[in-house]
Amino acid sequence: MEFAEVVRRRRSVRSYDSSKEVSDEQLKELFELVKLSPSSYNLQPWEFVVVRDKKDRERLKACAHNQQHVGDASAAVIALGTKNPSGRADAIAADRIRKGLMSEEKKKKFEARVKAISEDEAKARLWTVNSTSLACMTLMLAAEDMGLATCPMEGFDAECVKKEFDIPKEYEVVMLITLGYAKREQPERPMRYGFEDIVHFEKLGKK
Amino acid sequence: MEFAEVVRRRRSVRSYDSSKEVSDEQLKELFELVKLSPSSYNLQPWEFVVVRDKKDRERLKACAHNQQHVGDASAAVIALGTKNPSGRADAIAADRIRKGLMSEEKKKKFEARVKAISEDEAKARLWTVNSTSLACMTLMLAAEDMGLATCPMEGFDAECVKKEFDIPKEYEVVMLITLGYAKREQPERPMRYGFEDIVHFEKLGKK
Repeated sequence: MEFAEVVRRRRSVRSYDSSKEVSDEQLKELFELVKLSPSSYNLQPWEFVVVRDKKDRERLKACAHNQQHVGDASAAVIALGTKNPSGRADAIAADRIRKGLMSEEKKKKFEARVKAISEDEAKARLWTVNSTSLACMTLMLAAEDMGLATCPMEGFDAECVKKEFDIPKEYEVVMLITLGYAKREQPERPMRYGFEDIVHFEKLGKK
Repeated sequence: MEFAEVVRRRRSVRSYDSSKEVSDEQLKELFELVKLSPSSYNLQPWEFVVVRDKKDRERLKACAHNQQHVGDASAAVIALGTKNPSGRADAIAADRIRKGLMSEEKKKKFEARVKAISEDEAKARLWTVNSTSLACMTLMLAAEDMGLATCPMEGFDAECVKKEFDIPKEYEVVMLITLGYAKREQPERPMRYGFEDIVHFEKLGKK
């Protein structure tokens, strides 16, 4: 589908046809695009737990204020961001050096910067949410392009999700996203602030 | 352009043709898509300061570790997220009620939840980064579709940006994004973790 049409068609869908499944092949196609999202230092802090089993979705639903669509959608995706990306620095640096994008000299500086991310919990949370959200947006648009509907959720009990799905402390639960087939046509889109409201020239307040 | 091609072509570009300009019309086309991004409670916490004046870009560059591309790109976008979305709740609720998407009863609950966002600074920062980053990803992909290159930056001095561009405390500087015309072909893409690395089934660690 044309890019702009995908953006215009995407809606946050809360009503799913629970009889339809999302296949392994569809997930593969989806995440092959998601992984191309940019991230801070290319550290790709994201990992995704795809929950398709009905019992698991019910457990997740209980952590998400019992939102019905978590139970109804073919899948629910738990988007996680690591707060400790140091484990990834070696592979990223080796790749950059091999491709002539980083000198051996700069590697140490890079490693020190990556290490610094995890030293301040509050900063690490912001850092990982920032990059992981980028991948989440790619996910929602790519799904739309594949004929799949999504709904992002930030309203959930993160501690409950961590407990139910054995997610270590190192991870931030950034977002939950339902994924499946829309049951019906969507109601009119809720309002959006316009260009004049959200864009300023040179300084805030200047239109 | 086809959606998947846009995602595959997008790269973080740090080398720009500084002789080319990004027009008002291009910005309008771009942000008309950006505004369609989803956000928590549809509160659309994002605002964007588009910096095109060379002197202003130099001031911004000084806040961004003197990264050359901030000075070279046709524009640099300061992506802001408000940490106090209460001012938006009225308009959003009125729109939802008009469209039959919210009852008068639920309006109070909605307002209380929105108010709660700004009561905890740390939570408010995470909340606004989460939604604003979604819009930033739409921006980068939409730009690619229009033949424009971008580069997201998280490495900058937020206090400096706030001071130089008179940005009130209410806002989080979520990201800087350069925007313009790539000067040359991009080097090989840095590595990405694959499907097997980032996707887990039912629980973390299960492939």
